[in-house]
Amino acid sequence: MTRRDYVRDGAEIYKRSFATIRAEAPLDGLPPDIERVAVRMIHSCGMVDLVDDLAFSPDVVRSARAALDTGAPILCDAHMVASGITRRRLPADNEVVCTLSDPRVPALAKTLGTTRSAAALDLWADQLDGAVVAIGNAPTALFRLLEMIDADAPRPAAILGLPVGFIGAAESKVDLAEHEAGVPYLVVHGRRGGSAMAVAAVNAIASEAE
Amino acid sequence: MTRRDYVRDGAEIYKRSFATIRAEAPLDGLPPDIERVAVRMIHSCGMVDLVDDLAFSPDVVRSARAALDTGAPILCDAHMVASGITRRRLPADNEVVCTLSDPRVPALAKTLGTTRSAAALDLWADQLDGAVVAIGNAPTALFRLLEMIDADAPRPAAILGLPVGFIGAAESKVDLAEHEAGVPYLVVHGRRGGSAMAVAAVNAIASEAE
Repeated sequence: MTRRDYVRDGAEIYKRSFATIRAEAPLDGLPPDIERVAVRMIHSCGMVDLVDDLAFSPDVVRSARAALDTGAPILCDAHMVASGITRRRLPADNEVVCTLSDPRVPALAKTLGTTRSAAALDLWADQLDGAVVAIGNAPTALFRLLEMIDADAPRPAAILGLPVGFIGAAESKVDLAEHEAGVPYLVVHGRRGGSAMAVAAVNAIASEAE
Repeated sequence: MTRRDYVRDGAEIYKRSFATIRAEAPLDGLPPDIERVAVRMIHSCGMVDLVDDLAFSPDVVRSARAALDTGAPILCDAHMVASGITRRRLPADNEVVCTLSDPRVPALAKTLGTTRSAAALDLWADQLDGAVVAIGNAPTALFRLLEMIDADAPRPAAILGLPVGFIGAAESKVDLAEHEAGVPYLVVHGRRGGSAMAVAAVNAIASEAE
């Protein structure tokens, strides 16, 4: 078989990727724990200018990691997010939850007059207290989460708010960043986001290994 | 519960999203079947300028769809890609395959001196002929696929080449676009790509429903 000329060593690919990101991305103003998360998020999408749209509370990584260390579940809005989280990086064999396919969700969505993605969050009620929430798809899920917190639902330890798209994504992330409850958060403002970025954020918070 | 002001109707969100994309993205030069795929890929990442980096063979959507209609499997390099494909859109209950977690892969990667993502493709041999391949993560997987075709492996019906990142992603997509075997392809040149884009391409090809 003809061997094409490319790097085949997985560890070397990671090392060179992360070095390229650190050489090109404007990471200087970031706290070290946020920097690690930003690097991995950039790695997931190939865009160093992602940093320009990054916003966060200074304690978000600390709070999310402490929650994971004590066994908190990770609540995801989409199956792709749940699928991408690297289980061996999780410090306490943490449960990864996505309720989107629960058979109760379609009826719940109809009753609530909202999307299935948003309705699925109502099934998180028992697990929300102190959880790490990763929203990588639906703006309606993030809006719904804020409404639940407005209505005195238990508070998660951190919200990684990375819905993507053209209708509501930017607005939902502004609402999260300005939310008066002050739950630790991380967002990429604007239309960009997605399951890969949400996964990258969780994987970076779960373990320092690069 | 306080109701925030946002669109909650899933169908309406899709409709407005796709209208926004069609109003903003430079789609004019694209054949209609490619345009549909491009719109859905843009929807998955929130970036209308994705079109600038799109390259394809004119027959890629036709070839991939014909393959799906006759029951071809969809071969994916990453679990997130396999996870995101909407099963109810598939025209022939097509099999969605990801061999990355196969227990033979780590040893195979060691023997071949390559990544697990690339080695996993060797387990596609029996299914590659006429399949739809969706690469949404690893440049090494796309390079490996081209090497296999160079070595007279059976040809897939189409290659959706959307690896992401800083080391090899851009190069692997150039190699695909210039590959002399002429397998129908679609790529986003440069560093951008990812599982969500690969999923969007498959979902758009599988069904005209928006």
